[in-house]
Amino acid sequence: MTDGTEMYRLMERLFPICRSITGNGVRESLNIIGEIIPLRITEVPSGTGVFDWTVPDEWNISDAWVKDPQGRKIIDFKKSNLHILNYSEPFRGKVSLARLQEHLYSLPDQPDVIPYITSYYQRRWGFCLSHNDRLKLAEGEYEIMIDSTLEPGSLTFADLIVPGKSEEEILISTYICHPSMANNELSGPVVSTFLAKHLLDGPPPRYSYRFVFIPETIGSLTYLSRKMEHLKDNVIAGYVVTCIGDPGRFSYLRSRGENCLTDRVTLHVLRHSEKDFAEYSFLDRGSDERQYCAPGIDLPIGSLMRTKYGMYPEYHTSADNLDLVTAEALEGSLIKYRLCLEVIESNRTYRNTVKGEPQLGKRGLYPTLSTKKSGEEVRDMMNLLAYCDGEHDLVAVAEKIGRPVWELVPLAKKLYEHKLLEIVA
Amino acid sequence: MTDGTEMYRLMERLFPICRSITGNGVRESLNIIGEIIPLRITEVPSGTGVFDWTVPDEWNISDAWVKDPQGRKIIDFKKSNLHILNYSEPFRGKVSLARLQEHLYSLPDQPDVIPYITSYYQRRWGFCLSHNDRLKLAEGEYEIMIDSTLEPGSLTFADLIVPGKSEEEILISTYICHPSMANNELSGPVVSTFLAKHLLDGPPPRYSYRFVFIPETIGSLTYLSRKMEHLKDNVIAGYVVTCIGDPGRFSYLRSRGENCLTDRVTLHVLRHSEKDFAEYSFLDRGSDERQYCAPGIDLPIGSLMRTKYGMYPEYHTSADNLDLVTAEALEGSLIKYRLCLEVIESNRTYRNTVKGEPQLGKRGLYPTLSTKKSGEEVRDMMNLLAYCDGEHDLVAVAEKIGRPVWELVPLAKKLYEHKLLEIVA
Amino acid sequence: MTDGTEMYRLMERLFPICRSITGNGVRESLNIIGEIIPLRITEVPSGTGVFDWTVPDEWNISDAWVKDPQGRKIIDFKKSNLHILNYSEPFRGKVSLARLQEHLYSLPDQPDVIPYITSYYQRRWGFCLSHNDRLKLAEGEYEIMIDSTLEPGSLTFADLIVPGKSEEEILISTYICHPSMANNELSGPVVSTFLAKHLLDGPPPRYSYRFVFIPETIGSLTYLSRKMEHLKDNVIAGYVVTCIGDPGRFSYLRSRGENCLTDRVTLHVLRHSEKDFAEYSFLDRGSDERQYCAPGIDLPIGSLMRTKYGMYPEYHTSADNLDLVTAEALEGSLIKYRLCLEVIESNRTYRNTVKGEPQLGKRGLYPTLSTKKSGEEVRDMMNLLAYCDGEHDLVAVAEKIGRPVWELVPLAKKLYEHKLLEIVA
Repeated sequence: MTDGTEMYRLMERLFPICRSITGNGVRESLNIIGEIIPLRITEVPSGTGVFDWTVPDEWNISDAWVKDPQGRKIIDFKKSNLHILNYSEPFRGKVSLARLQEHLYSLPDQPDVIPYITSYYQRRWGFCLSHNDRLKLAEGEYEIMIDSTLEPGSLTFADLIVPGKSEEEILISTYICHPSMANNELSGPVVSTFLAKHLLDGPPPRYSYRFVFIPETIGSLTYLSRKMEHLKDNVIAGYVVTCIGDPGRFSYLRSRGENCLTDRVTLHVLRHSEKDFAEYSFLDRGSDERQYCAPGIDLPIGSLMRTKYGMYPEYHTSADNLDLVTAEALEGSLIKYRLCLEVIESNRTYRNTVKGEPQLGKRGLYPTLSTKKSGEEVRDMMNLLAYCDGEHDLVAVAEKIGRPVWELVPLAKKLYEHKLLEIVA
Repeated sequence: MTDGTEMYRLMERLFPICRSITGNGVRESLNIIGEIIPLRITEVPSGTGVFDWTVPDEWNISDAWVKDPQGRKIIDFKKSNLHILNYSEPFRGKVSLARLQEHLYSLPDQPDVIPYITSYYQRRWGFCLSHNDRLKLAEGEYEIMIDSTLEPGSLTFADLIVPGKSEEEILISTYICHPSMANNELSGPVVSTFLAKHLLDGPPPRYSYRFVFIPETIGSLTYLSRKMEHLKDNVIAGYVVTCIGDPGRFSYLRSRGENCLTDRVTLHVLRHSEKDFAEYSFLDRGSDERQYCAPGIDLPIGSLMRTKYGMYPEYHTSADNLDLVTAEALEGSLIKYRLCLEVIESNRTYRNTVKGEPQLGKRGLYPTLSTKKSGEEVRDMMNLLAYCDGEHDLVAVAEKIGRPVWELVPLAKKLYEHKLLEIVA
Repeated sequence: MTDGTEMYRLMERLFPICRSITGNGVRESLNIIGEIIPLRITEVPSGTGVFDWTVPDEWNISDAWVKDPQGRKIIDFKKSNLHILNYSEPFRGKVSLARLQEHLYSLPDQPDVIPYITSYYQRRWGFCLSHNDRLKLAEGEYEIMIDSTLEPGSLTFADLIVPGKSEEEILISTYICHPSMANNELSGPVVSTFLAKHLLDGPPPRYSYRFVFIPETIGSLTYLSRKMEHLKDNVIAGYVVTCIGDPGRFSYLRSRGENCLTDRVTLHVLRHSEKDFAEYSFLDRGSDERQYCAPGIDLPIGSLMRTKYGMYPEYHTSADNLDLVTAEALEGSLIKYRLCLEVIESNRTYRNTVKGEPQLGKRGLYPTLSTKKSGEEVRDMMNLLAYCDGEHDLVAVAEKIGRPVWELVPLAKKLYEHKLLEIVA
C-alpha cells in the first residue's frame, strides 16, 4: 500500500468525526492519529489566558435536528455535521419559520452546498443548509433540537518531538478543528502524520522535529503562550501544513520577513521541481502563520500548500469532501514536504580550504570517462569551490549557480570528504 | 468664496508688481501677503556674505522705454515689466540700431512672447521684446531711458513660524523674485500663503511649520547661512513650492537622497490620489532644493509641482500670465499639499502590544454588520497589527499593504486607543 | 608604424614558437617580449608546491612525426606544433593503426582543423590531426617518433613593475603557455606588452602597475603562492588579458564579487564608448580570474576581452591563426585598455567645500559664450558639486548623472583648482 493510499484511508477514518476547537471530536481524532505516531496529548482548562485570548468553554454535541410542521426531519446533524452551526449552544423548542430563518445559514451563490459556519466567541444557535433546501421551507412551526453542551472543560492539543542530533528544531504545525471537510483541513494532519512517521522510521535526523496538532488560531496562540521562548530560541524553519490534498498545483505562502530559511528552501525546491506553482506574500496569510510570524514572535514559518484556502469554490463547504482529494495528490505532497526537509537537513555553510582552485585530478575527482553528466559534475564542483566562501549556505550557492541543491549535496559531501570544503559553524 | 478664487484674486493683486531678488517690488509683495498672514520681514544689507555668495546691491526701477527714430515709444516698461532686463543699470542716451541690438533679448523660436531675462551679477542694461517686434526695428537712432537704481541697500525676505506641539519642523519655501509671471512664480507664494493661513486658523499642529518667502537662490542661501544648524537639527520634511497653479498633472521632484520622508509621503499621496503624475529625480532639480539638499546641508526637501518649470512653453515668458493658471488648479494644489501635510502629521511608528493576533471581537472592533467596507476595515486592522513592528512607520506600512495611509490612520488610532498598538518614540 | 601594426608584427614573431606551461618555448617568447619591455624572469623548480598543486616536470620537444606504412610522414610537428599532444612524453616505435588510434585526437564536428589538446598532469603521448586526415588512415604499421623530454626543470614566468606614485597597484595578468594560436593566446601578451611600453614611455603613473606573464592556472597559482599577501594588500584593480585580438565586439567578465572597481570602471567605459558589448558573470569564468578571485584571495580582477574563449569556433584549434586577428582590432583593444586605466588613474573621491551651490560666475567658471557644449559643462559642473559628497567616487558620480567620466575629469580638476572640491583620502 502506498503512502498516498494509507493517507487517504486515514482521512476516511477521520472524516466523519465532528471536530471543533475543543471537545471530544478533537480527542477522538488525535487518538486515531496516535495509533500511527506517539502523540503527547495536553489539555488546557477553559478560562486559561493565552496572550490576548482566553480558552473558551468546551463544546460537545451528540445530535441536532429541525423538524418541519409535518414532523419530518428536514435538517439532520447525523447526515452531515456541517448542518450545525459549529459551537451552537443547546436549544429545544418550536419556532416559526420567520424566527427560524434568523438561525439559518446558506450560500445563495452556491445553492447546492452546506456552508461551514462557526460562532466560537459569541453564544448562538443555528443550522447550515443548502440554499436550495432553504428555499423549500414553508410557513409553519418548526421543532428544534440541539443536544449540545457548552461548558467549562478544556482545549486539547497534541505534539510530538522527533529528537535529532541538534537541539535546533523544525516546526510542523497543522490544525484539527474542522468537522467533515477533506482538503481543508484533513489533508494537513494526515500529511503531517506521515511526515512524522517517516522521520520516526528513519535514522535520527540532524535537526529535532516538533509536530503540533492544534485547533487553528486559539490552538497556536495556546501553544505559543507555553513555548514561545523555547521556539524562538530553537526553531530554524517550519511550516503550517494545510490544503495539501487536492490535485492542484503547489503554492507557497512566505513568512512575514519573506526571506527566511523556509522561504528560501521551499521556493528553491518548487522552482527546481515544478513547472508551475503559485507564490503568495504574507499579505495573503490566513492560517496559523498569522500567530507564528506575528511581530515579536517572528518564527521562520511559511506554508506549502496545493490550492490555497479561499482559492477553490469548495472551500469551507460540504463540497470539500473526500472526492476533492486524491491518494496521488497526498503522496505527491508528502514527497514534496520530505524534499524540503531533506534540503534543510543537508543545507550547510561550507568554505573552501585551499587557496585558488584545488587540483581535482590528483584526488580522482575528475571523471575518467568524459560524459555530459560528468562534465556537469566537474562544473558543479568548481562552482561549489568558487562560491562556498563561508558566508553563503548551500541553498544560496545553488540559487546563485542555478542548480537544484540536491544535485550539489553529494558533490559538496565529496569535496568535504577530500577536505576541500570545511563546514562553517 | 472658495480658497481657489481667493488665491486667484491674491495673484491678480501681486501680478503687476515688478519684483526682483531685491528691491521694493519684493517689499510691496510681502506687504500684500502680510495682510493675510503675519510675516516677519528681514532685511539683509548688500555686501553681506552668504556662504560662497555676497548679497548684491539693491535694484529698483520706476520707468524705462525705448523710442524709435520717429520718437514713438516702441518698448515700454509700463506696458510690461518683462520688457526691462531684470537688474538693468540706469541708462539714458541715444544709440544706433546696431548698438541697440546688443542690448536686446528675444526668442526666435517663440516670436510672439517677451522673454524673462536677468543679469543679477554682471552690470548690464537691456530690454526684452517679442522677436516679431524686434524684426520690425528700422535703421536709425533710438532713444533709451532706464530710470533704475542699483545701489547698496538690502535683500528682503520674510518668514513665519506656525508653532506646533513639537519643535520638529516642516519647511515650506517659496520664492518671490519674479516680475509679472503667474505660474512661475506667483502660484508658489499664493499657495504657500493659504497653506499657512489654514494652519493658523486651525488647532495647533503636531509639528511646527516654517514658511519662508525668499528670492530664489540668493535668498535660500541667505536663509540657510543664518539658520542652517537649526534647520538641520529640526526639519523632518519640507517642500519648495513652485509651478503649482496650472491645470496640468502633478509632478514631484525628489530630494537628493531620493528616499526621505517628504519623498515617501508625497509619492504615496500621488500614487493613491492621482491617476497620472510625473516623477523627477534630483538630477532634474532647478530651484531652491539645489541649496536645501546640497551635500553637507542635506535637508529632506522635495518639490511638489504641477507642470515643472522648463516643461511648458510659456515658462519664463510673458505668456506665463494669469490665463495660464486657474482658481480650480490652485484649489486642487492647496488640497494636495494639505493632504501631504496631514499625512506627515498623522504618520507614526507603531508597535503591536500583544503577542500573536489580538482578539478584536471582545473589544467590539469587529463590525456587527458585515459589509464590503467593514470587511476591508478588519483586513486593514489585521494588517496594521501584523506589520506595525516598531520599525516601519505608518507610511511604510501603507505602502507595504497597498492602501492609502489616510484610510489606515483612523484604524491605527482606534487600535491605539484600545492599547493594541503603542507609539515608538 | 601604428601600435596595431607593431603588435601584429610581434605576434608574427611569437606565433611559430611551441610554448607550453614550462620549457624553452616560454623562455624564447619572454626573451622576445623582453626586447620591448624590461621583464624580470623567474624560474620555479619542478616539484615546488604551490597551494594545492605542484610545479610539474619541464617539457621540451624538438621533433615529432608519424610515418604511414609506406614511410610517408603523414603527421609532422614541424608543419604545425599543434600536431603534438602538448606535454607528450617521448616515444619511438611501430604501432598498428588500432593502437595508434588510441593516441590520436581530432574533432568530428570541425573536420578540417587540428585541435589543441594537452595532458599536463597525466603522462601520455599522442598526436592531434584534422578529422578528415584521420579518416584517410589505412590499416598497417605506423612508425612513431616523439623527440621530447619531460624531466625535472623549472616553470618560467616573468613580471614587470612600473612604479607609480602610490604603492597601490593595478595587476595586468596574461598567459604565455599556448603553442601556435593567435587570439587565444598571443593577443593577450602582445597587448599587455604594449600597455606596459606605453606606461614606461610616459610620466610616472599615479598607481604602480604589475604586469605578469605566466602559464595559465599553474602560473597564476605559482605567482599567488609567492605574492598573495602583497597583492591582497595593494591591488585595487586589474585584468586578465586574453582573447583581445579579433575584430568582434568587446566583452567583459566580472570579478567574483561582481562590483569591484575594475567592474565598475570597465562597464562604465564600455557603456559610454561602445554601441554594443557582451557582459559575463563570474559564472562564465575560465581563465586566471578563477585563481585571483577565489574565496580567500578575492582580488578585484575582471577580464576585458573581445570574443570570449569558447564563444568562437576557431578557439583551441589551428584555425585560431594569424588571419583571425587584425592590427586594427589589436589597436582598438589597446586603446580600450588604456582608457580603462586612465579612468582608474583619474578616479577620485571628491567632496564639495562650500555650503549650497557655489557662485561659478565670480570665478570665471561660467562660459562667456553660451553654446550647447558650454551649457553641458555648466550642467556637469553643477552635478559634480551636487553629487560629490565625499562618499561616491567620480566613477559612481558619472554613473549617477549618466555622463562618461572622462568628460567629468577635467571639470572636476577645474573645480578642485578653484577649491570648490576637495579630495577625500
